[in-house]
Amino acid sequence: MRSRLTNTRDAANTTTTTIMTDLTFAVLGTGGIGRRALDVSTHKEGITPVAACDRNGIAIDHDGLDVDELLAATEGNVASDGGVAAVKQHGAEKGVAASTQAHPSETPIEDVIADSEAIDAVLIALPNFEHDFIPRVAERFAAANYEGVLIDVLKRSRVIEMLDEREGLLEESGITFICGAGATPGLLTGAAALCAQSFVEVEAVDIHWGVGLKSGYADNRGTVREDIAHLPDYDIETASEMSDNEIEAVIDEHDGVLGFEDMEHADDVLLERAGICAAEDVTVGGILDLRSDEKPTTTTVSVTGRTFDGEQGTNTFELDDATSMEANVNGPAIGYLKAGVRRNRAGEYGVFGPAELMPGF
Amino acid sequence: MRSRLTNTRDAANTTTTTIMTDLTFAVLGTGGIGRRALDVSTHKEGITPVAACDRNGIAIDHDGLDVDELLAATEGNVASDGGVAAVKQHGAEKGVAASTQAHPSETPIEDVIADSEAIDAVLIALPNFEHDFIPRVAERFAAANYEGVLIDVLKRSRVIEMLDEREGLLEESGITFICGAGATPGLLTGAAALCAQSFVEVEAVDIHWGVGLKSGYADNRGTVREDIAHLPDYDIETASEMSDNEIEAVIDEHDGVLGFEDMEHADDVLLERAGICAAEDVTVGGILDLRSDEKPTTTTVSVTGRTFDGEQGTNTFELDDATSMEANVNGPAIGYLKAGVRRNRAGEYGVFGPAELMPGF
Repeated sequence: MRSRLTNTRDAANTTTTTIMTDLTFAVLGTGGIGRRALDVSTHKEGITPVAACDRNGIAIDHDGLDVDELLAATEGNVASDGGVAAVKQHGAEKGVAASTQAHPSETPIEDVIADSEAIDAVLIALPNFEHDFIPRVAERFAAANYEGVLIDVLKRSRVIEMLDEREGLLEESGITFICGAGATPGLLTGAAALCAQSFVEVEAVDIHWGVGLKSGYADNRGTVREDIAHLPDYDIETASEMSDNEIEAVIDEHDGVLGFEDMEHADDVLLERAGICAAEDVTVGGILDLRSDEKPTTTTVSVTGRTFDGEQGTNTFELDDATSMEANVNGPAIGYLKAGVRRNRAGEYGVFGPAELMPGF
Repeated sequence: MRSRLTNTRDAANTTTTTIMTDLTFAVLGTGGIGRRALDVSTHKEGITPVAACDRNGIAIDHDGLDVDELLAATEGNVASDGGVAAVKQHGAEKGVAASTQAHPSETPIEDVIADSEAIDAVLIALPNFEHDFIPRVAERFAAANYEGVLIDVLKRSRVIEMLDEREGLLEESGITFICGAGATPGLLTGAAALCAQSFVEVEAVDIHWGVGLKSGYADNRGTVREDIAHLPDYDIETASEMSDNEIEAVIDEHDGVLGFEDMEHADDVLLERAGICAAEDVTVGGILDLRSDEKPTTTTVSVTGRTFDGEQGTNTFELDDATSMEANVNGPAIGYLKAGVRRNRAGEYGVFGPAELMPGF
């Protein structure tokens, strides 16, 4: 397989320069998503993880982190509060700082920012129970004039509005912010954008996901807690204040299987901003089974529309039940991260959703 | 629905300028694909057809062509040889020249080139029975220092090699050439690129299409003739030399249903150049029914791969049987055209396949 180079023409003459080859990235947060993104990146070509941090410390190596060592040292670093509880401790150090590649730090994010000139992209894999936490992290990068990609895998619509409010600041800095770039939104909104290509009018987008996580709450705290916030009697505030025991009790009440309808998932606003359809025509629901790794239902995107020649049809995209939620979040996150770096190097700054990185509808 | 603007930062200061809003395009050729692309574009926002030509003449209007008038005037303009036979004649003029917006021309492509400064993209919908015809058209645009997008919906792998050989020339001119941007390759290679996001290794891509064209050979001459070239006893040279009667005889022999296996479709090389998988892991086949508009089989893309956590799975993308081949060629063509203009305005020149416009695998 040959590696692809794209070229840009210098405005003043006709020499060509390479604008996309290899890239470096950092991960903020080493919970479920951060750890798996590091893992997935080791399977991909042309992408080198150079920094990772949690609230205890930071590991930086511009030649590339030893991901295996880092993951082993931080095993169990999946805490409900972002890194204090249940963190594996090596000697005196907790979390990332337990890695031989790391040092303790009380200002880990600032440390990444200080070193960000050599970092093409930063995956923000931090818990976001305060809606504006990730937007505020973005502000800090902008304040330091970071020029590169910031990317998150968040699900909630309102975070995107907060990023949009900061778009001018991001543009001035030279930041390309890719939001909602996991499985849903992310892979599935991208699929919806592609399914829409047959149509001249999109009437409905239905996103229905199934996730089986036998590893349960213990290994997927952030994800499960955020999902519980989508249940009828809960919201993000109540969910963020629940104790681990209370969360477990809700799971038990539902015999481990949580069903969701009409979720506040950013898929709707992200598809609208990409020009695919109105947000109100998008529905997102799913089933989360915390007692089995088998998916309780097949993850499917259905896009119904009208063709230019007057027919109505429904195109579909289906993920195999054998592909895990982890694979479907982190593969696309890395894919969109690459797409974002390409946009950033071409000088496109601001806030982008995954569907905006697809061919225009 | 709000329209999305993306902004680029001026290198010298921090003012922002709009790099993507509306775009204009021209169509070379007014056979089945050219006519339908014009039709589809009238259903889309922000894209204005400003020129169309065939071998008899050219219609140009920088404020936007009246597509309805043009299509009515050129009805029947679906000739097996690119525009001589079976062309509707209004008064003394044939083909495009019969439109009130057009004038006869013996150098229609040169006329488009002469006016190309105001044209963001050119859809090349000309027959390509000589393998290098479209690459040679691209050369003519490059010779005139055209800065914009050229796009084709060709199927054959070897044309892409010829375009690659001319990549330097295209880059010098400022041309972004998007090749194979119809249904397959095009929509379906894009879908394969997206399906691949769950995996760290793609083992097989299987593209299987079904097309029902009750309108038959008469209305789809270029497409049918090119497909016949993929049958076991034929190749592109023999197919291009067959008379209409001989083509009809082959169709009759097969009772109107042509089955294809292991086609020389550019999907394979386009997926390889996008880094999805090796070309040899891609198989393309399909069934064309010329006696019914019902699809003889459902068009499906299946991508089998291995996830980072060691599972094997197959993600799938399916087009509804109710979506016509025409909708699935021309919708994506316009979508990729838009994506191409965005790349071009960002200064990315050279040769791109559809899958390269997707998030990187």
